[in-house]
Amino acid sequence: MKGFAMLSINKVGWIEKEKPVAGPYDAIVRPLAVSPCTSDIHTVFEGALGDRHDMLLGHEAVGVIDEVGSEVKDFKVGDRVIVPAITPDWRSLEVQAGFPQHSGGMLAGWKFSNFKDGVFAEYFHVNDADMNLALMPDDMSLESAVMITDMMTTGFHGAELANIQMGSSVVVIGIGAVGLMAIAGAKLRGAGRIIAVGSRPICIEAANFYGATDIVNYKTGDIAKQIMALTKGKGVDRVIIAGGTPETLIQAVTIVKPGGVVSNVNYHGKGDFLPIPRLEWGCGMAHKTIVGGLCPGGRLRMEMLIDLVKYNRVDLSRLVTHVYHGFDKMEEALLTMKVKSKDLIKPVVII
Amino acid sequence: MKGFAMLSINKVGWIEKEKPVAGPYDAIVRPLAVSPCTSDIHTVFEGALGDRHDMLLGHEAVGVIDEVGSEVKDFKVGDRVIVPAITPDWRSLEVQAGFPQHSGGMLAGWKFSNFKDGVFAEYFHVNDADMNLALMPDDMSLESAVMITDMMTTGFHGAELANIQMGSSVVVIGIGAVGLMAIAGAKLRGAGRIIAVGSRPICIEAANFYGATDIVNYKTGDIAKQIMALTKGKGVDRVIIAGGTPETLIQAVTIVKPGGVVSNVNYHGKGDFLPIPRLEWGCGMAHKTIVGGLCPGGRLRMEMLIDLVKYNRVDLSRLVTHVYHGFDKMEEALLTMKVKSKDLIKPVVII
Amino acid sequence: MKGFAMLSINKVGWIEKEKPVAGPYDAIVRPLAVSPCTSDIHTVFEGALGDRHDMLLGHEAVGVIDEVGSEVKDFKVGDRVIVPAITPDWRSLEVQAGFPQHSGGMLAGWKFSNFKDGVFAEYFHVNDADMNLALMPDDMSLESAVMITDMMTTGFHGAELANIQMGSSVVVIGIGAVGLMAIAGAKLRGAGRIIAVGSRPICIEAANFYGATDIVNYKTGDIAKQIMALTKGKGVDRVIIAGGTPETLIQAVTIVKPGGVVSNVNYHGKGDFLPIPRLEWGCGMAHKTIVGGLCPGGRLRMEMLIDLVKYNRVDLSRLVTHVYHGFDKMEEALLTMKVKSKDLIKPVVII
Amino acid sequence: MKGFAMLSINKVGWIEKEKPVAGPYDAIVRPLAVSPCTSDIHTVFEGALGDRHDMLLGHEAVGVIDEVGSEVKDFKVGDRVIVPAITPDWRSLEVQAGFPQHSGGMLAGWKFSNFKDGVFAEYFHVNDADMNLALMPDDMSLESAVMITDMMTTGFHGAELANIQMGSSVVVIGIGAVGLMAIAGAKLRGAGRIIAVGSRPICIEAANFYGATDIVNYKTGDIAKQIMALTKGKGVDRVIIAGGTPETLIQAVTIVKPGGVVSNVNYHGKGDFLPIPRLEWGCGMAHKTIVGGLCPGGRLRMEMLIDLVKYNRVDLSRLVTHVYHGFDKMEEALLTMKVKSKDLIKPVVII
Repeated sequence: MKGFAMLSINKVGWIEKEKPVAGPYDAIVRPLAVSPCTSDIHTVFEGALGDRHDMLLGHEAVGVIDEVGSEVKDFKVGDRVIVPAITPDWRSLEVQAGFPQHSGGMLAGWKFSNFKDGVFAEYFHVNDADMNLALMPDDMSLESAVMITDMMTTGFHGAELANIQMGSSVVVIGIGAVGLMAIAGAKLRGAGRIIAVGSRPICIEAANFYGATDIVNYKTGDIAKQIMALTKGKGVDRVIIAGGTPETLIQAVTIVKPGGVVSNVNYHGKGDFLPIPRLEWGCGMAHKTIVGGLCPGGRLRMEMLIDLVKYNRVDLSRLVTHVYHGFDKMEEALLTMKVKSKDLIKPVVII
Repeated sequence: MKGFAMLSINKVGWIEKEKPVAGPYDAIVRPLAVSPCTSDIHTVFEGALGDRHDMLLGHEAVGVIDEVGSEVKDFKVGDRVIVPAITPDWRSLEVQAGFPQHSGGMLAGWKFSNFKDGVFAEYFHVNDADMNLALMPDDMSLESAVMITDMMTTGFHGAELANIQMGSSVVVIGIGAVGLMAIAGAKLRGAGRIIAVGSRPICIEAANFYGATDIVNYKTGDIAKQIMALTKGKGVDRVIIAGGTPETLIQAVTIVKPGGVVSNVNYHGKGDFLPIPRLEWGCGMAHKTIVGGLCPGGRLRMEMLIDLVKYNRVDLSRLVTHVYHGFDKMEEALLTMKVKSKDLIKPVVII
Repeated sequence: MKGFAMLSINKVGWIEKEKPVAGPYDAIVRPLAVSPCTSDIHTVFEGALGDRHDMLLGHEAVGVIDEVGSEVKDFKVGDRVIVPAITPDWRSLEVQAGFPQHSGGMLAGWKFSNFKDGVFAEYFHVNDADMNLALMPDDMSLESAVMITDMMTTGFHGAELANIQMGSSVVVIGIGAVGLMAIAGAKLRGAGRIIAVGSRPICIEAANFYGATDIVNYKTGDIAKQIMALTKGKGVDRVIIAGGTPETLIQAVTIVKPGGVVSNVNYHGKGDFLPIPRLEWGCGMAHKTIVGGLCPGGRLRMEMLIDLVKYNRVDLSRLVTHVYHGFDKMEEALLTMKVKSKDLIKPVVII
Repeated sequence: MKGFAMLSINKVGWIEKEKPVAGPYDAIVRPLAVSPCTSDIHTVFEGALGDRHDMLLGHEAVGVIDEVGSEVKDFKVGDRVIVPAITPDWRSLEVQAGFPQHSGGMLAGWKFSNFKDGVFAEYFHVNDADMNLALMPDDMSLESAVMITDMMTTGFHGAELANIQMGSSVVVIGIGAVGLMAIAGAKLRGAGRIIAVGSRPICIEAANFYGATDIVNYKTGDIAKQIMALTKGKGVDRVIIAGGTPETLIQAVTIVKPGGVVSNVNYHGKGDFLPIPRLEWGCGMAHKTIVGGLCPGGRLRMEMLIDLVKYNRVDLSRLVTHVYHGFDKMEEALLTMKVKSKDLIKPVVII
């Protein structure tokens, strides 16, 4: 079968691979829609995961089941399914400890285009189908469905980790698709004021749509200073980092109140250290919690997020700005993420 | 001064009382709007708190400050303020234990029309003004502002105690004003499906407005059976009890999944016991948590709820169906709550 | 093979059964030590689980692996293992929701002598060996090891559910083996004063050994009154129910402070309802949380409890008062639990 | 009155000051025992808090009440009291937010020898006596009692912030008095293996006494490598930082498992940043939570810790290695902390 691959660092291309086969608990899925992710760009053009050879790219997909293993009970060939970017090994001690994302090792619940071939292919393999797939509702658009697999679960996880309370003030740094979902997620956890940090007009418009009450543009000055001014020197209850550099942590710790939380869902691909500013962190005694985590995957997570879409708690359609049609458009869509044109949030390829 | 009082069980009337005076940390407030509460009805006509003589009624009010004590720093005469129904003693060991509502004893954070004169008066007394008052925004309607003091904080507390997760399915039993706010609160904690239990058309319409996705009418059959049918026998993740009888707990425990939560914000005024059904509670081993609590009060709580209104996270105006004008309409408004006409949710008296 | 079975309600006896076979992920274990449990008594002589025919009894065992399935990776024939009473299906949505105990349905993580043959047999079957077994340390006595499988994990879970804080005052009602472990668990969660409720001298002695600071005997008067007197009318922060009747809940709610927790690990086998006293529960508003749950099982839980024994955080040997030798002593040991002689806490059969 | 003061950075000496006076809610206390703290050394000889002139030092004291304000209800002249190092303003919004330590601003609950005169004086002032003092039990030694005020509450807070579960493996970095109390606290939260990092023999002996199961000496090699070797490459569940430099955070993040917690109770006095190692932190996605906080103070905290001592959950006497007698020994005792002789853990001055 054909697939679009990372050939080596900085090199991508179409290759031929064997069609994968399903083990007894697995499924083979034919994609109906895929979306490239900034992570794919990191992986290929920054070598963030180290070198990989002929690894198929992509981890955001919905599709139709082409084959199921003998032990799969809840899904059958022909079912249309949503496939989470994170597909844990549910039989693992990390699951018993409460962290499926790290089943088998740190971040090892993330398999597609990391430890195994991704979804930019005619077919792809899903481990433990009963535990990792979810039925796609008939009336859900492919564009929205594919946004659930990574953008929604990641952004919402940012809001979850932030431990938002009713009326909390929240800053979301970065308003790409993940940051926008962090805003929507913060609103759905009860945030009051939501200050979004970004600059591109199309993202700002979407940030307002998803619940931002204030916009801070990092191009017009230090964001910590701007936010302290906006809050009359008080700072905010919670900060979600959904973009930026390691130094973004300095700003986040500076603007969060004692007793607050800095929640990171940004994949930090560069630098040796993320610096915590000592004084602003109360010399270690300010109760400013710093936490960051890979998005939850698996079936139940997908089903619960599907319900949020189904019951109109969030409208994912605003994330998708570019729709391509045809399997062979994967390359073009991916490169769009590299260039990031003015009018881009997320591209989707309908196959 | 004049005030509307409980004279004794089953008897209400206008009486004359001394105008209260402010201690060094206190304030005297002149009400601008008040709202009677079902609790007032319980207190007077069911004697739920025991007999009281010549106690002024009412605990939901916004007003203007008439006098402040010498130690009050953040408020001054003429400030328009929102007064929470619950005004804890912040200097208490219960606060140090995390439960201001019970400062000085179980439920003792609730003072107005319980342990001291209420707000249906020309003036009323607020203990610890700096800790228990919040400035009312200029552009907030009096009707909405007075809904924050009890209905919003109580209904939202129901959602908080329920520990709702992103996509949780929630049943709200009772769709008076508190139940409606529990629905709005559940939505703002990330609930997916919200099944509301009630019967009055005006409340059903408001329930849909606030986020209910399904309505179950207890007049058309056992609600546990109806909800199990709606959920294909699975039950729901969370139940909020905002009305009903002690036996409502049987239904709540029946429909909640293992690992779920039953959260009560209903004031249970009758019966000796609330029964937990043994088998449905897994013979004590089902991890079905049962919790219930008095709403949080105090200044910060009010400020955070004000922010939710200010940033359009919730529209309180739909709660208020009857607006009276004039101090002397308190009696009429209170009796409206006793009769509960078809078209009533909450009455407000603008003074 | 031979095993000791419930033949029907009120009838037990030795029967012959086919030796179980291991599926690809399973193991067959030959018991080295077993212990009967009060639950076995409930099951047989009270019919608490309904009628069962020729079901082998017992769910507390340690043993040696006799056979492993083809997919088992971490264990091999000859390994000495601790087998938790609760062996969840780790591939289930309930695990994804955080409640392995209820995988496949309420309480369905409990399989031995409930849904399938128990451990009072020459061999028994363990589902998902890699996820449900733990290696027994060489220097651990069989008597102590078998106490981990149920008594320790259950009693400790009572302390966990109670959400004990540093210095909390705790009442433990019932001082059989589970209650004793609740005392030890409470101490290991930071409890200060621990008031144990019981009457048998041998249990009182053990309660003191495990950390009780006060003993209340229910035979000398109402325990709620006694405990309120002991605490000068204040009550306690936490209550763990490890024995008693449905009405024990009335006492527990009465003595717990507002903001406190009542944690149940008692298997309630009788009665239709457990009554919550309305007034003492603050008419539903006292923030007195009521929670109860089946003990956690699985491999990681066993490994973490093993560590507590290994590092001398708790000495399990005091639980075992009667040691029998020989496979055929299972019947005698079980009946000991029925009679409960003066000097009994737990019997163990070494095979 | 006489007191021992920081005259300016690097300069200490005895000075005369006015005896403080009690406001209506306050108390004046005459110390019976005081203990100097490493923080005093930071303050004076590193200028960690900036320059201070003629500020009396010391924040660890027990004493006898010499005067109470007119509104103090629970204490009277002559009462022997334990005075927490942290004495919050209980009437503050930070208390309402759950963080009394930061009442009035970050770390501002810490007043003695920070914002106001400390306890190395003939008399000292305590704000809000009813909320910030606790009665000292008659049979408690002065040496033990004064250890509660800071060392115990701080070390135990390290264990609390670490969110230890039953059987968690824990590393405690630093085994001065705070680290030793972190070990004792970890044991009382249910830790299994406790690896202590330190080098001084007297501290190692005390670490073993308080519950350490392994000792790692930083002088014999990189502690991260040593601990990864000890744990067969798995790392540990929790790390408590109770000493070290900003770079200690690198080691802590390295050795903690995904899903783990790094808890800091060390006062970091130097450096601009505490570095989080990017890769070991899973590029921001490892769920390795980092939290640090000032110890809780106030009356209830003291009372709950007193209970732990009273009920023999911890023996504080091992912390005190040097006992001085006489008011004028404060200087000598303080300088002992500067020099840190081989046989020193904590000095106490009995007055």
